[in-house]
Amino acid sequence: MAHIDVDKNLPGMRSLMAFSPETAAPMGELANLLLRSNEGLSMADRELIGTYVSYLNDCFYCQQSHGAIAVCYLNGDTELVNQVKTDYMHADISDKLKALLSIAASVQKGGKFVTTQQIETARELGATDHDIHDTVLIAAAFCMFNRYVDGLASETPSDLSSYPLRARQVAEKGYGNHIFSDKQPVAESKEI
Amino acid sequence: MAHIDVDKNLPGMRSLMAFSPETAAPMGELANLLLRSNEGLSMADRELIGTYVSYLNDCFYCQQSHGAIAVCYLNGDTELVNQVKTDYMHADISDKLKALLSIAASVQKGGKFVTTQQIETARELGATDHDIHDTVLIAAAFCMFNRYVDGLASETPSDLSSYPLRARQVAEKGYGNHIFSDKQPVAESKEI
Repeated sequence: MAHIDVDKNLPGMRSLMAFSPETAAPMGELANLLLRSNEGLSMADRELIGTYVSYLNDCFYCQQSHGAIAVCYLNGDTELVNQVKTDYMHADISDKLKALLSIAASVQKGGKFVTTQQIETARELGATDHDIHDTVLIAAAFCMFNRYVDGLASETPSDLSSYPLRARQVAEKGYGNHIFSDKQPVAESKEI
Repeated sequence: MAHIDVDKNLPGMRSLMAFSPETAAPMGELANLLLRSNEGLSMADRELIGTYVSYLNDCFYCQQSHGAIAVCYLNGDTELVNQVKTDYMHADISDKLKALLSIAASVQKGGKFVTTQQIETARELGATDHDIHDTVLIAAAFCMFNRYVDGLASETPSDLSSYPLRARQVAEKGYGNHIFSDKQPVAESKEI
């Protein structure tokens, strides 16, 4: 049960955004800017970074929901998303993305864990200032999202089959106010 | 030196916001909503929570800049702000705020560290759902801000005398785009 009185028909982040629509608006806008762009990093890369950080933070809701969105962008390759979470160094992704995931892992521990060597390695593999900026801010933003969801103990669907439909909606329309404005019960809509 | 090519005349968060004004806008809006309100928690309470979390995350820039803003709201009581950072249980603040700072400390470690007992204690001391919500989201947001600032190794003025002027500006005008639109060199403006 959530620590505060939120709509029990809405799961995870969506219940919190409905509780506080004022703060939901800039958080949705930030998510859109960071995750719905193919400039430098692809949308798949960006969701993989967010999913990986959520995995490191042990946030079930965020790693499942964003993992499912990454799967949409990766043409259904669930196995790749799982491998990025548990062993990205051996995943079939670019060396540049591996270097950026290493930076994201350091950000998850704390900003000061990022080393100059990690940055230099990422640059040698083709990462630009914007790629590095976006990686750090995506990782930092998920440290906020994960703590928001779990710090208030929001309801999290444990049924993994409930995530893909919602993921497809985000993959098609992006993040924003619509993600909590359609208040169908989770059990009916099978959304997250 | 910062990990990416930012304006060296701007310190900390401001240099990053100038580098990426698109993401700066929703982050500034979120800061305004969470920190520039006296609904339930006072603006001083909110800055103290942010300062304390920044202290726990060892983010020098954020703890100094937000600590200086808290000092403005607390009529110059620097000692109180320092005591909240290092030993809030013995600080001259309400028991309710102590209970909320305890929740903030748990959020800083990770969302799942917040216990039902902590929430119940805060409620017994007068905290509402909105107070608890705002405390968790302020703490979570500072886990993002701190990682953004330190993860990109942004320049941080070590001269403590440079913080109060900027703090007064924020205390008067709030957060927002203006915090990075005035690009006077730090050395001249003594701003943060």
